[in-house]
Amino acid sequence: MFNRLLIIGCGLLGSSILRAASNKKLSKKIFIYEKSNKNISKVKKLKIPCQILKNLNKDISDIDFVIMCTPMSEYHKIIPKLNAHLSSKSIITDVGSTKTNVLKLIKKQLEKKLKWIPSHPIAGSEVSGPEYGNKNLFLNKWCVIIREKTTNLKKLKVLKKFWKKLGSQVIFMNANSHDKIFSITSHLPHLIAYNLIKTAKDFEKIQKNSLIKFSAGGLRDFSRIAASNEIMWRDVFLSNKKNMVSAINLFTKNLNLFKKNIERKDSKQLVKKLINSKKVRKQIIKLKQDIDKPDFGRK
Amino acid sequence: MFNRLLIIGCGLLGSSILRAASNKKLSKKIFIYEKSNKNISKVKKLKIPCQILKNLNKDISDIDFVIMCTPMSEYHKIIPKLNAHLSSKSIITDVGSTKTNVLKLIKKQLEKKLKWIPSHPIAGSEVSGPEYGNKNLFLNKWCVIIREKTTNLKKLKVLKKFWKKLGSQVIFMNANSHDKIFSITSHLPHLIAYNLIKTAKDFEKIQKNSLIKFSAGGLRDFSRIAASNEIMWRDVFLSNKKNMVSAINLFTKNLNLFKKNIERKDSKQLVKKLINSKKVRKQIIKLKQDIDKPDFGRK
Repeated sequence: MFNRLLIIGCGLLGSSILRAASNKKLSKKIFIYEKSNKNISKVKKLKIPCQILKNLNKDISDIDFVIMCTPMSEYHKIIPKLNAHLSSKSIITDVGSTKTNVLKLIKKQLEKKLKWIPSHPIAGSEVSGPEYGNKNLFLNKWCVIIREKTTNLKKLKVLKKFWKKLGSQVIFMNANSHDKIFSITSHLPHLIAYNLIKTAKDFEKIQKNSLIKFSAGGLRDFSRIAASNEIMWRDVFLSNKKNMVSAINLFTKNLNLFKKNIERKDSKQLVKKLINSKKVRKQIIKLKQDIDKPDFGRK
Repeated sequence: MFNRLLIIGCGLLGSSILRAASNKKLSKKIFIYEKSNKNISKVKKLKIPCQILKNLNKDISDIDFVIMCTPMSEYHKIIPKLNAHLSSKSIITDVGSTKTNVLKLIKKQLEKKLKWIPSHPIAGSEVSGPEYGNKNLFLNKWCVIIREKTTNLKKLKVLKKFWKKLGSQVIFMNANSHDKIFSITSHLPHLIAYNLIKTAKDFEKIQKNSLIKFSAGGLRDFSRIAASNEIMWRDVFLSNKKNMVSAINLFTKNLNLFKKNIERKDSKQLVKKLINSKKVRKQIIKLKQDIDKPDFGRK
């Protein structure tokens, strides 16, 4: 599919793309650029044929596909190097979780001759690092590609083909819709999980009562999500500020109503709310977003 | 261990006790009292030796161990029957998730000669019904037994032995501490999960934008918890009202601070919060409240 593919940033996502691209033979040659020496030695241990670049210099001039897998806050440091060395025939994409910020940055910083079409594979985990990568990470998962009025359609077609080869279900969205939708389905749940763990720790301090050891009844599920990479999630929260604030406000409004239902002992309203949630669970399983297997806790 | 054991309410918890008690031969005879005909036929299909009672009448006079596994809002209807027919040598316990309410009810309604020592096994799932029961549900899980100044120590010892035979790690608490601790480790997480799903549905309505199909990025984990039994959880929220309100208030205070961090783009504070959450996750795994296996979503 490509002659020279370059992965910038080789953590969980980057190394999963490395594994999948190598396995599916998507490129004659794969290049890796990774800042962390620790990650570089982990990547070497994978024994996957690829060339690790020390710098982004003229060696990247004939790369035809670049995929950015660093935290989004690193993009602005990389773009000047792409501007200086990349040819206009190449396609650039990324895997960041928010998109209007990326479009803004591209408009401001990226050379007009270069084309960057943002992607967002809905795949990941609470762990990070190349050792956790998996060639099937994208299999049957959504991948959102950002299509705007100005998107180069020929390059878009190639990008779509790339994600389909990795097993993804591709869907097009504009950046604005993307950031709204994922503020609710992904960013708010993560923020809420972090906030719940913070609240539990605060409570321990106030009550001088150790309680983490009793977390099997619910807290543990949130703690998994709240163990996700802090740099990635700081970047998400800050770059999707407007939608995060709206999502938090809507959540808080609903939480206050819930509290009122409890204070007023409004049994009918409570049961109605809880039944409606159960319906959403059924919908999520029907849409194959989760498996229909009960969880009884630690195995 | 017992001659005649009676399980009142045979759903997920009751049927798990039935399976475990039968498997461990904890009683010469096991009796079941269950209101729902649907559940009764499911229990019969299990082919576990037990006698299903149509009524709680004089037939229960020589029961030596009663375990209440109905929703807590049913207890007040059962107690008059225990008062009328049970002998003072019997031990009564329950598996409800809140405890000061149960103590209050006992004090108000239960005959003085009868002894009810509340228990709370920290085990369950988002599913309900006897078909999901499991003889190992309590294995290596905490079971809290409520010990107050007035608790009959001889009967307490027998109750402890019962839970240990089921594989539980028994811990004693007073009802007040119990309800405080579990308001944070279990009740608040469930309420938050319900509220998050409600918020997502509201957002779909406001935005006229279907988003549930993208729930793999976080929302799906909450939807599982938010599919738990509505009667059980209504009872929990209402009976632990005071602690729920405090927990919600602390959560909301922290959420507002989190929102301010985002609005002010306070990167340092955000990273600090996210790193601290990760530490709690490590603690939870070390305390064996969850397994150290990354989750990559649908298998």
